[in-house]
Order: sequence, then C-alpha cells, then structure tokens
Amino acid sequence: MNRDKLYLPGLADEEFIREPGVPMTKNEIRVLSLAKLRLFSAAVIYDVGSGTGSIAIECKLLFPDSQVFAVERDARALRLIGLNSEKFGIELNLIAGNAPEALADLPPADRIFIGGSGGNLTDIIEMSDKKLKARGWMVINTISLKNSAQAFEGLEAKGYRAEAIQVNIALSKTLGSSTVWQARNPVTIIAGRKEEELSALW
Amino acid sequence: MNRDKLYLPGLADEEFIREPGVPMTKNEIRVLSLAKLRLFSAAVIYDVGSGTGSIAIECKLLFPDSQVFAVERDARALRLIGLNSEKFGIELNLIAGNAPEALADLPPADRIFIGGSGGNLTDIIEMSDKKLKARGWMVINTISLKNSAQAFEGLEAKGYRAEAIQVNIALSKTLGSSTVWQARNPVTIIAGRKEEELSALW
Amino acid sequence: MNRDKLYLPGLADEEFIREPGVPMTKNEIRVLSLAKLRLFSAAVIYDVGSGTGSIAIECKLLFPDSQVFAVERDARALRLIGLNSEKFGIELNLIAGNAPEALADLPPADRIFIGGSGGNLTDIIEMSDKKLKARGWMVINTISLKNSAQAFEGLEAKGYRAEAIQVNIALSKTLGSSTVWQARNPVTIIAGRKEEELSALW
Amino acid sequence: MNRDKLYLPGLADEEFIREPGVPMTKNEIRVLSLAKLRLFSAAVIYDVGSGTGSIAIECKLLFPDSQVFAVERDARALRLIGLNSEKFGIELNLIAGNAPEALADLPPADRIFIGGSGGNLTDIIEMSDKKLKARGWMVINTISLKNSAQAFEGLEAKGYRAEAIQVNIALSKTLGSSTVWQARNPVTIIAGRKEEELSALW
Repeated sequence: MNRDKLYLPGLADEEFIREPGVPMTKNEIRVLSLAKLRLFSAAVIYDVGSGTGSIAIECKLLFPDSQVFAVERDARALRLIGLNSEKFGIELNLIAGNAPEALADLPPADRIFIGGSGGNLTDIIEMSDKKLKARGWMVINTISLKNSAQAFEGLEAKGYRAEAIQVNIALSKTLGSSTVWQARNPVTIIAGRKEEELSALW
Repeated sequence: MNRDKLYLPGLADEEFIREPGVPMTKNEIRVLSLAKLRLFSAAVIYDVGSGTGSIAIECKLLFPDSQVFAVERDARALRLIGLNSEKFGIELNLIAGNAPEALADLPPADRIFIGGSGGNLTDIIEMSDKKLKARGWMVINTISLKNSAQAFEGLEAKGYRAEAIQVNIALSKTLGSSTVWQARNPVTIIAGRKEEELSALW
Repeated sequence: MNRDKLYLPGLADEEFIREPGVPMTKNEIRVLSLAKLRLFSAAVIYDVGSGTGSIAIECKLLFPDSQVFAVERDARALRLIGLNSEKFGIELNLIAGNAPEALADLPPADRIFIGGSGGNLTDIIEMSDKKLKARGWMVINTISLKNSAQAFEGLEAKGYRAEAIQVNIALSKTLGSSTVWQARNPVTIIAGRKEEELSALW
Repeated sequence: MNRDKLYLPGLADEEFIREPGVPMTKNEIRVLSLAKLRLFSAAVIYDVGSGTGSIAIECKLLFPDSQVFAVERDARALRLIGLNSEKFGIELNLIAGNAPEALADLPPADRIFIGGSGGNLTDIIEMSDKKLKARGWMVINTISLKNSAQAFEGLEAKGYRAEAIQVNIALSKTLGSSTVWQARNPVTIIAGRKEEELSALW
C-alpha cells in the first residue's frame, strides 16, 4: 500500500474487503461521522458495532498515534476487520463480544462511535457514558425512526448537549447516455459531548 | 492554537473568522467535498472562489506538505482568508484575481476545488482542465439547477469520468423542550478525474 | 370565487389569507397529507391544530358533502380560518378550544389530521383514537425528532398499522440569471389506520 | 368499484394493475405532480409517456368532465392503461405513438404532463408548447441531472415562468421490531405556465 497516495479522509468504499451481510458505513456517511467525532491526536477511540471496520480504520489512518478499539460480536465481521487492517497496514484492537458488556474492561475513551446497536441502544449508551472521559464525544448513527429519538433522548438524559443531522444523499448513476439519481437510505447522525464531570468542578 | 486538539477533518464552522456576505463551505459539505478531492501528501491544490478559505485551510492542515492556492477576487474575502490562515498557523498562497485568468500562471495542480464560479463556470472548468495533471481530480460544488448540469457536462466533455452527489442535510435545533429539524439548502458535489493524457500513452 | 377555475388538490399558498405567527401546512406537505388521509365522500373529518385552516379547507373543497371540524385554540388563527372559509365559499365547523379536550363532544370521525399538537401529542392521539371510527385513518405531521417517534409509537401502541414518510423538498428560486435551490424544512407524515374493533368481529 | 370509497387524490400504488418494466409515477410524486398541474373542471389534459396511466387516471377521476389523452408508444403500457381505465370505470383517450409526433393532431391542451421523454425532451417541450393554450401549465418530471436542467431551460426559452421542486422522500419499512427508512430516488418536478399570447394582448 502506497501511503503517499492514501486519500484521506474518505477512502472509497471499494477499497475495503467486504462480505455480503456485513454492514459498512459508506463513504459519505463515514466522512460526516468522522467529522462529528472531532478526532485528535493520541485519542482512545471505540468503534462499537464495527462491521467491516471502516470507521475504526479511518480513525487509525488519520491519527496513527490513536488507540482504536473495534468492538464486534459477529465472527465474519471480525475476520473482515482483521483483513482490512492488514490491507491498510495498521493495528486495531479487536474486541470480540457483545456491547455493552464488551466495553466494560476497555480503557476510558475520548471518542465513542456507535454504528450498530443490535437492539441494545439504550444499554450501550449507558455503558458508553460510563467509559467516556469528561468532554469526550459520543457519535451514534441510526437508520430507524425510533433509534434516532432513543439516541437523542439517551444522550440528553445523561446531560449531554446533543446535536443531530439527518443526511439524504443521492448519487449519480450513468445509464447509457443518461445520468440518473439513485438515493442512499437516509441516516441520522447524533453527536453529544459529555460535559465536565461535577466532581472536576470542585 | 493547540495543534494537539485540532479536530480533523471537519473544523466547526464557528472556528472560522467570518464576515457577512463572504460565503463559506459549511462543515458537512466541506468534509464531503474534501473526501471527494481524494487528498494526498505533497499535492498542489487550488481552491477556486475560496471565500472564507475553509476548504484551503483544511487541505493544508490535513496535509501540511501540500501547496495550497486560494484564488479569490473579493478583497474582503482575501482578508478573511489571511486572518484565518494566521489563526490556524498555516501558510496559504493567496491569489488575488478573477478565475479563470488568475489560474493561468499557477503551477500544475493535482487537485482543483471550485466552490464559487461567479457565472464563469464553463470557462473555469476549461482553464482548470488545462492546469490539472493527468489523473488529477476536479471537484465542483453547485447550488443551482443549471450549474449542476453545466459542471457535469463540462467534465464529461473533457473526457472525465464524472460523478455527482446531491446532499440534503437537516440539522436539529432545540427550541425549548422540542428539537426541530432545520434544512440546509441542497448542494450538488460533482467530481471528475482527468484520465491519462494521450501523450502519456505513447 | 370561480369554482370552475379552482385548482385542486393543492391550492397555492398565496391563495390563503395569512398572518405572521399563525402556521400553515404548505402546498407540498398539504397535498401529501391529504393523500395520506385517503379522503372520500361524505366523511367526518377533524383538522386538529388547524392554524390557517388550509387542510380543512381543501378537504371540504374536494368533498363538499363532508363534515369538517377545524379545531384550534388560538383566537387569531380561528379568525383566519373564518376569513379563508368565506373566501373559498365553504362552511367549516369551527371548534375553539384546546385539544384533546375540544374533541370530546364531536361526532365520531372517519379521518383525523393532527397538524399541531402544542406539546400534547400523546394525549391528542389517545383522544383521537377514541373518536375515530373503525377503519378510519389518523394522519400526523411532525417537524421534530421526538414527535416523529412519539406519533409512530403512539399509533402502534393503539394497534394501528403505522406508516411514515419523511419529506425533504427544495424549491427553485431565481436570483438574476441563476436559479438556486432553497430547502424547506423536513416534515415527517405519519399515517395509521384503526383496525376493525374487536366488538365488531363478534 | 365503489366510488364512494375512492380515496382522492393519491390512489395507493397497489390499486393499479402493473407489469414489470412499465414505469409508474408513484403515489407521493403523483400527488405532487397533480398539484403542480393545477387541474380544473372540463380541462383538456395530455399525459405524455403515460406508462401505467396513473396520472391520466387520477386527472379523470378528480375531474370527470375533463378530456384526458394518454400518449404512450409501448404496447404493453397501452394495454395496462386500458386495463386500469376499465378497473376505475373511466374513459381515457389512448394515443398510441411516439411523442412529439403523436401530439400533433390532438386538440389544444389546458394542461400537459410529461412523465417520460424517451430522450426527446427538447422536442417534446417544443411540440407541447405549440399545443398548449395560453395560460396553460406544463409539468415535467425528471430523474436525471441533465433532463432537469434541460426541462427548466426549455420552458424558460419559451418564455414560461418555470418553477422546480426537488423531492427526496423516504418511507418507513418495518422489519421485525425496528422501523427503518427506505429512500425513494429523488425526482425533480418542473412546472411552467405559458404566458398570455402576444396576439391576445391586442
């Protein structure tokens, strides 16, 4: 892999080794989610429900001195994350297991991305909040009406200032001489910052 | 400015020094445009119609060894780009003048971003194509129905493989106890890659 | 008013007498909401939180033999609904008061549209369900992340088959020689059908 | 067919007899297009590129005294339009042939809808303009970047005041216990009104 020609942020979807049934945060949503994560040097980052590993991999490539934990319960997905890490020449910390339990023993996080929740979103937010350092950011991607509200209200209930963006994207597709628009399904990105711990104020 | 805490990509809009009437590529469209630019190390980059300078500045911050030309005709905008460069501690090449003429004497480019065209889009694409190296990328943001087609067809006419994404974004805004969606105006991002020059094939 | 030249469905927004601060369901969302209401001849229809009265008025114009109740608590809005009814030459039943209480004494409804909830959405759905006839439709417009989920879950909790559509619309606006897109804020339209009452099955 | 229970505007997509490969203007885009057509009593209406016939059929159902011409070149589509007319108990004028030629001998139109152009959009607009009465409306649906601009500029070139709306819609889909959003491809609806003929002003 020629590091000099690595285009960042926003690796093309085709750069990743994929497998049917293992989800991936696609290019456009990935770069927006990375932006909302407000990454910085030497951070501890979780990618919860890592799928193909695309978010974890871009975090590590953007900030090679960060420590990135890819949490995933599916064996095939874990294998893909491994293959992709190798392809891009980076080292991720693979955590095999279910969230939220699998997060319990990780070091405190500066940034937590939740791309997949397997129906446990409220519990995952609860645990993520415990692991997140003061002034850290949690970013959650949702594709469902109920999860969007649940994520937003979950962050607010923990005292986070939450913000959400709803993203509707269409891509041009050329068919013969005409170029038609093809919609991607909408995604809501919810981001919240953990405020100063009260104890830190005294 | 604490470089260790610089969040990249996707500086918050509020980080930039702004002035009414001088346009800026906002956070979400900026990170998507940067992704479509497929930036890499040590590239020569033009930001045509640079406005507040946000694209040029993120390019330079992401790849400090790149050479970034911010082309802008408006004196107030040029001043803002200067102030913002200073704030972020970087050096841009400010080019005061109208595109396309102002591009004529710049060194050949690896990447060209066209954020504002002042009604000259076709001419700017023409000149940009002349300056762009083989396999370079041109990325154009448009907010109008006609310019979108003009940009797409302009790139195709030059033999580029063009792709377009249409971006509709809404941001949550909290008013009292309710959180309503506020739409950003849609933007079309058109990207095209210059193919191998014929001469290079012989 | 020349009935022969009345354009239905989808009266232009400018056809309605308006006042600042009194909301109106705009043309595009109005015609989509009317479609989801699945109107028919001689129906009893509520327009809850009627605002300027645009939904109630189009219902009555489309089906003159329907009985339409415009429920509204704001005195200025009620006056506007009256003026607009007069302008279009129709008769609505104006119900001054707060939902849900104001619905209690109305005749059973075939169709209920909830355009404004004043923070009482769950209670309004509760009461609307009591008033709605079996196989009737309830249609709710929301502009907030939380209300969308609340409306959807509220209908599901009552055993309705709920469906939702999220609508992002941009309108062309011509400024000099260029035509730019201006976004309308997104609206979610939630529709649900009350199933056969159990008692009716025995 | 029970006319008393016919829900208008906005027949459900499933109400139409369909066939793979024959396009149909879906519910949401159909009701928006009908609204932009500004239908009225006893009008002469063309539905050009009628496909499954859904626009023509709703026009006729909304205004039974209108005269509706469904223009279509595909034999299978023509058969479907016939079957659907029968199902809804209405009579359309079926015109088998290619637009624009097939429009030449039709009576002057009050309203022209162009849902499909088969690559001939400019010619169809040209002919439609000839057939359209003064103060009539032309409404064009496009799904491609180039056709949108071509339609808009085509109407402007004829002196019409053109307006466009870009529609991005997502529908809820319930999968087990979660309800996810599924996007429809974006459609641009372009509408223009033919101004007073000069001759009529003298």
